[in-house]
Amino acid sequence: MFRNFDELKNVVSAKPQKLVVAAAHDSHTLEAVYMAAGKYKISYLLVGNQEKILSESSKLGYSPDPGSIIDIKNDDECARVAVSLVKKGDAGALMKGLLDTGKLLSAVLDRETGIRDSGVLSHLAVLEVPAYNKLIGITDGGMIPNPTLEQKIEIVKNVVNFYRSIGYTRPKIAALCASETVNPKIQETVDAAELQKMCSTGKLGDCLLEGPLSFDISVSRESTMIKKYSGDISGDADVLLVPAISAGNILAKGLIYWAGAKMAGCILGAKTPIVLTSRGSSTEEKLLSIMLSMIA
Amino acid sequence: MFRNFDELKNVVSAKPQKLVVAAAHDSHTLEAVYMAAGKYKISYLLVGNQEKILSESSKLGYSPDPGSIIDIKNDDECARVAVSLVKKGDAGALMKGLLDTGKLLSAVLDRETGIRDSGVLSHLAVLEVPAYNKLIGITDGGMIPNPTLEQKIEIVKNVVNFYRSIGYTRPKIAALCASETVNPKIQETVDAAELQKMCSTGKLGDCLLEGPLSFDISVSRESTMIKKYSGDISGDADVLLVPAISAGNILAKGLIYWAGAKMAGCILGAKTPIVLTSRGSSTEEKLLSIMLSMIA
Repeated sequence: MFRNFDELKNVVSAKPQKLVVAAAHDSHTLEAVYMAAGKYKISYLLVGNQEKILSESSKLGYSPDPGSIIDIKNDDECARVAVSLVKKGDAGALMKGLLDTGKLLSAVLDRETGIRDSGVLSHLAVLEVPAYNKLIGITDGGMIPNPTLEQKIEIVKNVVNFYRSIGYTRPKIAALCASETVNPKIQETVDAAELQKMCSTGKLGDCLLEGPLSFDISVSRESTMIKKYSGDISGDADVLLVPAISAGNILAKGLIYWAGAKMAGCILGAKTPIVLTSRGSSTEEKLLSIMLSMIA
Repeated sequence: MFRNFDELKNVVSAKPQKLVVAAAHDSHTLEAVYMAAGKYKISYLLVGNQEKILSESSKLGYSPDPGSIIDIKNDDECARVAVSLVKKGDAGALMKGLLDTGKLLSAVLDRETGIRDSGVLSHLAVLEVPAYNKLIGITDGGMIPNPTLEQKIEIVKNVVNFYRSIGYTRPKIAALCASETVNPKIQETVDAAELQKMCSTGKLGDCLLEGPLSFDISVSRESTMIKKYSGDISGDADVLLVPAISAGNILAKGLIYWAGAKMAGCILGAKTPIVLTSRGSSTEEKLLSIMLSMIA
């Protein structure tokens, strides 16, 4: 269990890794990569237009490490080469630069040359919320709009793999709904109960998943006492499995804008985590996302 | 526009009203009613088991106002009588006591004896979030699980009626989604765009509705500047129209538990607002909910 991002930083610094950036010729991306390299013990490979990488780097006041640039101008080729470097084991995480997300993800998912794992990619946001006693994961608020039960199973497997890789022996996952009650007319509550059943028979790997759970039962011990709820998660969730992308996205942004939360995000489901920050993301979010992707 | 609940309190105190409680023989309900009566200039009618009302009141250290009890033991009858009092104009708001929500709502929706208005009941949560400069509404995070476009139209009409009744001339409603982009594969983004179109042609009444909007574009001017978003709401939303009950419920609870928010809630769509707090609600939430329902 990690209480905050500082505790994660210690892990990433103890475990030096390499990040490969696809289409790195982008000022925002380069800035985050250089800052991450300075802050944590990570090295990087910049796949992209060398001329632009050098000019953007110079504008930012950085010069790339010798031998870190792989000069490629075509976007699809950038994606393919970056993915192949991960496949060969030359890098432990992949970051998107200035190219379409779709292009990068098709290279990732290519059945021959790609780095697909479960086959379903899902988004994980990890938030440091001042009012909670530890980091809280939210999945999937960024990739699959309205996941089916089958997709939820893959989302859970992805997050369990990730959490186990960073040291959680049995992550506690709350399958969030609007309430704790199963209502046959509300599919997400039926799915949540089904996931709990699957978890209890070991079909979801080493995790503790309960659902349907309300937000308060998931993260507040006081609320579980008032409601006399006797589950095992009881206010101590590590991860919130949301029923739909909108619920996760809106919750994460609500916490960032109004609860002072900091966020790191990455895509799970490939051989390595993938950093896909948007231009709207703060530099801090980009840095934390690189860090998160490097510790797996 | 109200910056906080204190500003709402001034309105309710200036406009004395009567609350009718269906099946009032419940300690939690009575406590909230007596406290609200003491704090704001409201009077009440308690429909329910007189003996129990008196004994519970006495345990709480209160005695009901003379003539405020209507002695009825049967739940359905409590609901029917309470609703009839509202219908006659004897009370300006209705509160649920110790009976099934379904029983109360069937009495409300009865085509002959009920107090149905639009015909679609929806939930409104109003939150005071320390980090936002005014009260923010969230609808519907409590009533309709996965509203269709037609139901969203009714949800919007309900909230516009309510906001206009409390003094907003043109409430700003953000149709929230995970992003600002319309994606034909994601129905809620299509619905949000359709609602915006309907609003612009006056079909939703006096309101400004825009969508699809992300949470940040809805409530953060800074974010609209970074993203160069040029809508009219631009970070100044009064109400967040959520795509599904889970998104609204999880957001509201996230803000209550982790962003220090206070909440008031009521059901809209009948001739008067209906207070339906749960046992898990704090006394403060019950009080604020009574207040909110009394100002319309």
